[in-house]
Amino acid sequence: MTYCVGLKLDRGLVFMSDTRTNAGVDNISTFKKMYTWAKTGDRVITLLSAGNLATTQAVISILNERTKTPSERSPSIYDMPSMFQTARLVGDTIRHVIDEVDSGGQRADSFGASIILGGQIKGGDPRLFLIYPEGNFIESTPDTPFFQIGEHKYGKPIIVRSYDPAMTFEEATKLLLVSFDSTLKSNLSVGLPLDLQFYESDSFKLGFEKRIERHDPYYEIISEGWSQALKLAFQSLPPFEIEPRS
Amino acid sequence: MTYCVGLKLDRGLVFMSDTRTNAGVDNISTFKKMYTWAKTGDRVITLLSAGNLATTQAVISILNERTKTPSERSPSIYDMPSMFQTARLVGDTIRHVIDEVDSGGQRADSFGASIILGGQIKGGDPRLFLIYPEGNFIESTPDTPFFQIGEHKYGKPIIVRSYDPAMTFEEATKLLLVSFDSTLKSNLSVGLPLDLQFYESDSFKLGFEKRIERHDPYYEIISEGWSQALKLAFQSLPPFEIEPRS
Repeated sequence: MTYCVGLKLDRGLVFMSDTRTNAGVDNISTFKKMYTWAKTGDRVITLLSAGNLATTQAVISILNERTKTPSERSPSIYDMPSMFQTARLVGDTIRHVIDEVDSGGQRADSFGASIILGGQIKGGDPRLFLIYPEGNFIESTPDTPFFQIGEHKYGKPIIVRSYDPAMTFEEATKLLLVSFDSTLKSNLSVGLPLDLQFYESDSFKLGFEKRIERHDPYYEIISEGWSQALKLAFQSLPPFEIEPRS
Repeated sequence: MTYCVGLKLDRGLVFMSDTRTNAGVDNISTFKKMYTWAKTGDRVITLLSAGNLATTQAVISILNERTKTPSERSPSIYDMPSMFQTARLVGDTIRHVIDEVDSGGQRADSFGASIILGGQIKGGDPRLFLIYPEGNFIESTPDTPFFQIGEHKYGKPIIVRSYDPAMTFEEATKLLLVSFDSTLKSNLSVGLPLDLQFYESDSFKLGFEKRIERHDPYYEIISEGWSQALKLAFQSLPPFEIEPRS
């Protein structure tokens, strides 16, 4: 499994992804699930992937080859005029990859993959998309300012409750670490290290990036601190009282 | 969907279940998912069910008919010599019901159901079981002192973090309400009212019972208070700091 989040803030975009891939619990590997295409002054595009690793790697490879081979340069992710067109390109690519393996008559589920795509291209606003295995996609709105893919349930309640579009990148990082920590504590198939990336609106350059390793001091403070803070929060609530039974 | 939890404490058992049943989001009903068989001084057995409503109702009906019709009185849930035998009876019944609908060649998934069974029978300790659609089951242990069925992911982190076997029934109720509140806020297919029941070890009588309705004052205090407490807990954590990039 996987857990990835893309968050849209007033000041930009924040991405976080885990790196665990597993084919059964006895076959665990570390793979980066965050990919970026950046051309300073022109565009920064970040992609997070969840699902079948062969599918997501094929999608990334095709997108990359198109950016490298001149004969196939069109359509390249560096030529797309807008984030919407980029989302269509990625959507078409993922559908194409899945169709290809699928034509063998296998079940589509197993080859499925979902993608979070965010970034900004000169002339447009920063945008954030969720792309389905079928190739169609939805865009984040003020009502739904974040997308999660993979094992999203454990870490959702805290984002729903504490997200605020006016957050700083640092606050958003804290929020995502708490969300990832809840997920890591509950599901073995989501694992450290985590990849973190910021994109500041209208900067058109790659923002802060960090790989948060197993013994990252800040992660340990959050993980331990959140356990403690939750216990205190829980204790602060009034006790249930059994009414006298009549 | 459904959300039910059975919790084993040092002083007894606590059960909570929601009441929402849906066949599609446009077809929602309220059904009780908590059933109790009690004979004061002899046994108290509580069952929580999740999954196909036709399956779970058939299981309950068969168990009830066996307790009522003299000719079928054996095996009745009131005659089982131990909680283990009761779990076997319920497991056999659920497998039998699923096999029956399944023989039509339909997919087993859709008829599936899971059951939490807990209680105490004179001569034994209080025990808590999780029964699978296949009819087999596991028992809670000090390592796994609670079982969840249905939509369990959203509400699991808080139980994992705050459960303590020495809790009072009142503290456990608070914990379960927080867990249910997180689930209700994230998944439409889990809905109020909630059913709550206590069983005090070695009492051999039905414990405190309550239906928590939509506007239950204590539930509203917990729901609102937990949002606030989480925000404060989150604020209490130190901010992430971007290290100076070299």
